[in-house]
Amino acid sequence: MTAVQQPLGEFDLIDRYFARSVGVRADVILGVGDDAALLRMPPDTELVAAVDAVVAGRHFPFDCDPRSIGHRALAVNLSDMAAMGATPAWATMSLTLPSADEAWLQGFSAGLFALADAHEVALVGGDTTAGPLTISIQILGHVEAGTALRRGGAAAGDLLAVTGTLGDAGAGLALVTGRLDARDRAAADAMIERFDYPTPRVRFGRAARGLASAAMDLSDGLVGDLPKLARASGLAAQVDVERLPLSPALQSLASPQQAREWALAAGDDYELLVAVPPQRWDALAQVARGLNLKLTTIGELRPGNGVRWMLGGQLFAAPEHGFDHFR
Amino acid sequence: MTAVQQPLGEFDLIDRYFARSVGVRADVILGVGDDAALLRMPPDTELVAAVDAVVAGRHFPFDCDPRSIGHRALAVNLSDMAAMGATPAWATMSLTLPSADEAWLQGFSAGLFALADAHEVALVGGDTTAGPLTISIQILGHVEAGTALRRGGAAAGDLLAVTGTLGDAGAGLALVTGRLDARDRAAADAMIERFDYPTPRVRFGRAARGLASAAMDLSDGLVGDLPKLARASGLAAQVDVERLPLSPALQSLASPQQAREWALAAGDDYELLVAVPPQRWDALAQVARGLNLKLTTIGELRPGNGVRWMLGGQLFAAPEHGFDHFR
Repeated sequence: MTAVQQPLGEFDLIDRYFARSVGVRADVILGVGDDAALLRMPPDTELVAAVDAVVAGRHFPFDCDPRSIGHRALAVNLSDMAAMGATPAWATMSLTLPSADEAWLQGFSAGLFALADAHEVALVGGDTTAGPLTISIQILGHVEAGTALRRGGAAAGDLLAVTGTLGDAGAGLALVTGRLDARDRAAADAMIERFDYPTPRVRFGRAARGLASAAMDLSDGLVGDLPKLARASGLAAQVDVERLPLSPALQSLASPQQAREWALAAGDDYELLVAVPPQRWDALAQVARGLNLKLTTIGELRPGNGVRWMLGGQLFAAPEHGFDHFR
Repeated sequence: MTAVQQPLGEFDLIDRYFARSVGVRADVILGVGDDAALLRMPPDTELVAAVDAVVAGRHFPFDCDPRSIGHRALAVNLSDMAAMGATPAWATMSLTLPSADEAWLQGFSAGLFALADAHEVALVGGDTTAGPLTISIQILGHVEAGTALRRGGAAAGDLLAVTGTLGDAGAGLALVTGRLDARDRAAADAMIERFDYPTPRVRFGRAARGLASAAMDLSDGLVGDLPKLARASGLAAQVDVERLPLSPALQSLASPQQAREWALAAGDDYELLVAVPPQRWDALAQVARGLNLKLTTIGELRPGNGVRWMLGGQLFAAPEHGFDHFR
């Protein structure tokens, strides 16, 4: 972890929280502390690389628990690995901090490393600068050559399915920001947990290779993300909005209309959206059951372009893309 | 290039400037536009990964030419590859921008891609957020297994050498910020060019494998960086300050004392510092001549720890680490 241009005291402090990757994985030949990390790829794999940044006041509220911020910064990147069917292995981090607050660093690093350890990901490099809180993690992983899931692999007739439940993170954010009443405390806490600690579906993504024809993760909500998968595959999509999987907790807290709106447009769920040929549906459903993960068909892909949202057999005007919730 | 949470207009605009990597390299199986990039590593190599961020007002003046900023953001990362003897191949970028100014984006991307093209580096992913100008690039490259240059490989008796000339970027920055008088316009322009467009020594780094015993790049100035190499190798260093290579342009603009101070402490030169066993010096010097690159011995490594700076046969009190020049 090099901390360019930081006063020495802060730089040492920050290093203390992040320089712990050496020895975490046998394939880290050289970790933090040189000009670059040296990493050993397994044979016959392709390298998978992505970068996603999270910004205070944009991707999470300013007063968010630092443990949740550390989790989120890595989770959004692990979710990209999941969407490719890749095995995450290493990460580098570019951290912009207003100041080196020790309690904050402790919470943040605890959240980050708890998730990193759960997925056996080693932090192998980083850079720290002073400024408004922004965490940009570059995730590196690998996938057996030729097996990665892409957005563009679907065919007409493929079913569309999503993991887990949708809209929970939207409800969680609404609770955190006081836009939704916590009528039921247990349900409210569950929704806040879903917003604060998204679960990247890494195991399901890996297991879906060879079964799903296309995949992507749902970060911006189905209305923002599904058109990208359909476009990449050169197809139209049709979704039955009543089939969107809603959690009992969400349904206990929000009106059916509000729940549906969050499921479609709130984003931050980090569930996977997959396309699967009908003849492989049973096998994919069995994979999900084996992981104790809900998998729900919500529609299908057809020749053409664009997305048709249906509700009660009628065309439904889906809400606009909901990504600007903090501004 | 995904641009999370940007208003759609800006996001499209930004995409237009960066979504051009597909097809640049045959080993980019999937570039910008999916959840992650898919990259093919050459056989029998190790993956080399580093991240370095540059921040307006800290690593470069706020009014810096955007072309120079684009160059710098990649150059500081290519310099890390050079220091490892690695071949850079791919990059991802996390870009934080105050606004999507089209003229700025045009200049920035021109500077970035001119250098990327010169090194055949493909930009394979990215993320854009709104905020104070920060560019964080993650560079990925490869090196034949077991051949990377490290900071910790030197032995007692090894010579210390630096590429190019030192202190030029310090003079360039002093000229740009009005702290140095441009008595000689041509010399001043040359120094400003050295600050604005640092040259990563990628070819030399690759060719130094098997000859140099240790290497690192000089970003924070010799007084900041040499102690790291000495410590990593478990050795002491002695440097003859009068041997530091100074360009004629620097000597024409600055007093000998000022030139020496910049050469030691100003940073931003992005030359390589290498250790080389005496019996391999001739071979390494020949490599440098073949690249038309100056290579100068400045001292040696000895048993012990710490760095002794000598001038005229006397111990010399080197200036403090000079990295806080913008604050």
